[in-house]
Amino acid sequence: MAQVDEKRCVDTIRLFAADVVEKAKSGHPGAPMGCAPIAHVLWSKVMKYNPHNPSWINRDRFVLSNGHACALLYTMLHLTGYEDMTLDQVKQFRQLGSLTPGHPENHVTKGVEVSTGPLGQGISNAVGLAIAEEHTRHTFNAAGDEGQLFGHFTYVLCGDGCMQEGISSEASSLAGHLGLGRLVVLYDDNQITIDGDTSKSFTEDVLARYAAYGWHTQAVPDGNTNTAAIEQAIRNAQAVTDKPSLIAVRTTIGYGSEQQGTGEVHGSPLGSESLAHTKTLFGFDPAQSFHVDQNVKAYYEQAIANGQAAENEWNEKFQKYTAAHPEQAAEINRRLAGKLPEGWAAKLPRFTPADPAKATRQWSQQVLQAVSDGVPEVVGGSADLTPSNGTALKHFPPFTKENRKGRYFHFGVREHAMAAICNGLAAYGLNIVPFGATFLNFIEYGLGAVRVCAISNFRVIWIMTHDSIGLGEDGPTHQPVEVNALIRAMPNILFVRPGDGNETTGSYIVALENTHRSSVLALSRQAMPNLEGTSPEKVRLGGYALNDVPNPNIILVGTGSELMLVVEAAKELSKAGTSVRVVSMPIVELFEEQSFEYRRSLFPAGVAVVSVEAMSTHTWARISHAQIGVDSFGVSAPYKAIMEAYGLTTHHVIAKAQAVLAAFPNNTAPDLLALRAL
Amino acid sequence: MAQVDEKRCVDTIRLFAADVVEKAKSGHPGAPMGCAPIAHVLWSKVMKYNPHNPSWINRDRFVLSNGHACALLYTMLHLTGYEDMTLDQVKQFRQLGSLTPGHPENHVTKGVEVSTGPLGQGISNAVGLAIAEEHTRHTFNAAGDEGQLFGHFTYVLCGDGCMQEGISSEASSLAGHLGLGRLVVLYDDNQITIDGDTSKSFTEDVLARYAAYGWHTQAVPDGNTNTAAIEQAIRNAQAVTDKPSLIAVRTTIGYGSEQQGTGEVHGSPLGSESLAHTKTLFGFDPAQSFHVDQNVKAYYEQAIANGQAAENEWNEKFQKYTAAHPEQAAEINRRLAGKLPEGWAAKLPRFTPADPAKATRQWSQQVLQAVSDGVPEVVGGSADLTPSNGTALKHFPPFTKENRKGRYFHFGVREHAMAAICNGLAAYGLNIVPFGATFLNFIEYGLGAVRVCAISNFRVIWIMTHDSIGLGEDGPTHQPVEVNALIRAMPNILFVRPGDGNETTGSYIVALENTHRSSVLALSRQAMPNLEGTSPEKVRLGGYALNDVPNPNIILVGTGSELMLVVEAAKELSKAGTSVRVVSMPIVELFEEQSFEYRRSLFPAGVAVVSVEAMSTHTWARISHAQIGVDSFGVSAPYKAIMEAYGLTTHHVIAKAQAVLAAFPNNTAPDLLALRAL
Ligand SMILES: [Ca+2]
Ligand SMILES: [Ca+2]
Repeated sequence: MAQVDEKRCVDTIRLFAADVVEKAKSGHPGAPMGCAPIAHVLWSKVMKYNPHNPSWINRDRFVLSNGHACALLYTMLHLTGYEDMTLDQVKQFRQLGSLTPGHPENHVTKGVEVSTGPLGQGISNAVGLAIAEEHTRHTFNAAGDEGQLFGHFTYVLCGDGCMQEGISSEASSLAGHLGLGRLVVLYDDNQITIDGDTSKSFTEDVLARYAAYGWHTQAVPDGNTNTAAIEQAIRNAQAVTDKPSLIAVRTTIGYGSEQQGTGEVHGSPLGSESLAHTKTLFGFDPAQSFHVDQNVKAYYEQAIANGQAAENEWNEKFQKYTAAHPEQAAEINRRLAGKLPEGWAAKLPRFTPADPAKATRQWSQQVLQAVSDGVPEVVGGSADLTPSNGTALKHFPPFTKENRKGRYFHFGVREHAMAAICNGLAAYGLNIVPFGATFLNFIEYGLGAVRVCAISNFRVIWIMTHDSIGLGEDGPTHQPVEVNALIRAMPNILFVRPGDGNETTGSYIVALENTHRSSVLALSRQAMPNLEGTSPEKVRLGGYALNDVPNPNIILVGTGSELMLVVEAAKELSKAGTSVRVVSMPIVELFEEQSFEYRRSLFPAGVAVVSVEAMSTHTWARISHAQIGVDSFGVSAPYKAIMEAYGLTTHHVIAKAQAVLAAFPNNTAPDLLALRAL
Repeated sequence: MAQVDEKRCVDTIRLFAADVVEKAKSGHPGAPMGCAPIAHVLWSKVMKYNPHNPSWINRDRFVLSNGHACALLYTMLHLTGYEDMTLDQVKQFRQLGSLTPGHPENHVTKGVEVSTGPLGQGISNAVGLAIAEEHTRHTFNAAGDEGQLFGHFTYVLCGDGCMQEGISSEASSLAGHLGLGRLVVLYDDNQITIDGDTSKSFTEDVLARYAAYGWHTQAVPDGNTNTAAIEQAIRNAQAVTDKPSLIAVRTTIGYGSEQQGTGEVHGSPLGSESLAHTKTLFGFDPAQSFHVDQNVKAYYEQAIANGQAAENEWNEKFQKYTAAHPEQAAEINRRLAGKLPEGWAAKLPRFTPADPAKATRQWSQQVLQAVSDGVPEVVGGSADLTPSNGTALKHFPPFTKENRKGRYFHFGVREHAMAAICNGLAAYGLNIVPFGATFLNFIEYGLGAVRVCAISNFRVIWIMTHDSIGLGEDGPTHQPVEVNALIRAMPNILFVRPGDGNETTGSYIVALENTHRSSVLALSRQAMPNLEGTSPEKVRLGGYALNDVPNPNIILVGTGSELMLVVEAAKELSKAGTSVRVVSMPIVELFEEQSFEYRRSLFPAGVAVVSVEAMSTHTWARISHAQIGVDSFGVSAPYKAIMEAYGLTTHHVIAKAQAVLAAFPNNTAPDLLALRAL
């Protein structure tokens, strides 16, 4: 690289980022100013990336775990020549429709690997990215060319907040266990959080903790000016290949500003006076904003040529690889294109009422085997509930230190890290389809990451068993009640509750086909029969009729383990002369996305609707006139006793249907569907 | 204590607990059998407690963090003579209506301090209990009698699962920081989780990690037979008064059974054959169940006399204390009785439309000062967002190592631990009113504990600011959308969204008055005016009319920052000749608890209802015919631009109202209220 004054480079980054925040009159200048030396080293000396192709598959990954410092990230993308990241965009920081939102969003900005801001997510995503790298490298690099085709590092920048969050503890413990040697975390040890000095709440020995996790640890005492020491520490980290590395870089938040070293500079613009003071201190013209010296500009823009050269070199390798390993190359190309293997869905099991009754978690176990057999990019695991969730992959061993090709993860009792690691796997770029499993109720432990998954448009399959009070003896601490309302109300994520084996198959079809959103599969602990009229394909409609009743007196809607209840109730009511349509609605969100005509075909105006689901009734007021459900906490008992005590019985469904029919005789029920169109 | 064969005692516990699980044909025998020696030492040699008064305020607290091991806890409560824990109850383990649910529930079973089962909760609750002990001891013990009136230990039993969860990392880091010297954690280091050997996922050095947190650490290599070593380690821990203590006790899961040392014995009954084998091995009659030798029984039942003597001694102390410090004694008695100070609510601020517009988080700041001035048992803090949440207590310094009287907590960036610590504070027994604060969206990070709070009937005030897309520039990762639907659907917890200053005062009144449930205060970042017709007292009704319109054409319902929108829209519509009732509904759950007559008085049959809330619309289908809200993720921009882009404008409210009026002219809208009564 050409010669340049490094201090001038670093100060340029500091001031540019501060200008970005100042212009927006909103944002976080402190961390960008403090971390500028780290960014300078990473982007100009360490990382392999191609600004003109941000999605080059073999790039180093960079994760800004302290996402509030995104002015720094946008500054570096701009300086190193990412085409979209124009000066205009930078000046539109935090404005409507810009590519520079207030925290980094992967689906908005090229060069942003994962959406960060909620603390602790990024470093945990990075564990997923590092796992994906190990897995990809060992899966595709042919014998003898180990490290040749695939192989890169994952770098993380994080702050005190990320270090305090439990999710990062979980993920870091697992990263140490798995010996992820190509994961390098730079910890911005500025000893300041929003409440002030870390001495107020955070006095643990972070490096000793990470050493206890099995990490390689280093400290850089002067991260403000000693870029050589930062670079050397990163080189040392690269050289340790059997452990992840943590480098604590001692910096000063808001370095150079009047407010440096205080909580004040964390989340508010410096103010024009302080910013001018800093510019003068650094030898910049205080009247100029967004200033970059020509040679500094030229220095960083070398990244464009260097990046293109790196990608060209890789493309040549891939050509040679293609010649030597045509099948594997085709497989790589298939995955890069995001095309699922031809005919994968047709190979999934189908069921008839003659098949034995099972829990949907058991059908899921069966379907997941077929999915993992047919779709090699499916990988995942459970947060220590493998036998309960039924997620072990019979034909594929676990991913371990020794077996990087493994497709199953023993995540340990770490739901939040599991979810964030799944996000990292999904973010990797090879259309990996991750799944994560626990009890449905404990999705709430991982919810921070599940939400980021939804925002990020990632496809992750959340395999969540023990899905209602029907789980029985474990009691209310384990019985989900509000989770259905929660996930339905959360955008861009589907709550999927299949009612038998066919619908379980359909649930996986939907989960894989919806490439830009994730699916929560809510699966029962207890058994239910395969039902007449269910269909894997119709699960795509969200809701559909199980029977052919042209002019019903009443419609019964059920999901999951309660579908059999409404089927039974319908039989009884029909015997008594009431014409009953039975609607299965495994995915309310997809049903609500159907055309008005389709929805009307299921729910004619005037016909009363009763819904039955052994969880919160809240969402159902959108669909049904009367609800049977569970709006209090459950109780510990054998499940049949609970279902009886909570009115989840055929008898109660019949009684409720009769009451509703009495209230709305002769098809006079309010037209709820019309309300949805208002 | 009388002489007894300790091995016989321990084996009795092992077999009794195994019998409990066997009888239920459901549950977890492994940990009880492995931890029996620890339980034996704690209950017979270490802990101060009174079986005939489980709520004696100065008892040692015991928390079973590995709640699935509750057969052990019930066994100990039975053996030591807790009156409710009869043999019949023990035999009703996991049955409907028993005092012996599948995981411990504090509100069901006397002697259970906190509800556990979700892993990591208990140890984190215990940090709250230990804080409460320090706070109580230093607040009430008079000079010279330090340690005399109040003063006890908090003991925790936990397993590998608790050690892996992020919540325990957060809480343990804070416990080390705070130097909670009377907290003693016994870690059942059995190296087995559900997935099998901990070598699959958990190979960190736990003791080194806890040392890094600032804990005193010890290991007991033989926890299966060496009860003396367990006792000595606890004595050592008691002697270290400036640090919490972790004791890793190496045990064998399912000790003595054929399945010992494997994951199999974790969560399933042993089976009659294996259980008989174990009984024979231990020298018990395999044909007998629930067997306790007379002298073993007598040995444990000494706890009754010892406990009563301990409490009697304390009562004498309290009598002397009362004589010497009558005011403080009265204060203690007031708190024990759970009576709030006379006239506290009357001292809270009231507002008029003449007062300046503010964000509800700013009003909350003002009201919280008044609440903390008037109610000394109010304590709490923020997860590092003190200035943003506005929760600093101006007149009361923080709780620190040096100042145990402090009432404010710098929790650090640890939302989940914060929530669990608040639960522990609420569980303590002196009717402490804890509050915990963060951004509303990040309640999802702490949701595991918030849910346990709701199950446990605890009163905690969750002060959650930045409550919708209205938070602006921080973008979708920080903007709650689904949280309103989530908390509303969660039982026994109120979602409270005040619309101005008066309603903010009312929110605190409701939060404190509802002694057996918790409240989530959703507070705005952005300003709004004080409105005509709002009332602190009417917040208790959940919803009420702001204006006096006897025969409305339409009803507009708003909450929080959108209340001003519906007020404005109503003004415009009235000008155009439409008669509009404006309903403020800060607490939907409380509104739905009101009499049908009251609800009908607000919502007459046939009158169309439009609701406006800048979050998910899902819940509102229960109340309104048409909704304005946010059912996708938000975006990063200044808040006014976002509100405009998402249709949260007076203009849009008016247009929606007109559309609904056109759809349902002359009061022909469906009667939704009648549906709620079906
Ligand atoms: Ca959804
Ligand atoms: Ca609620």
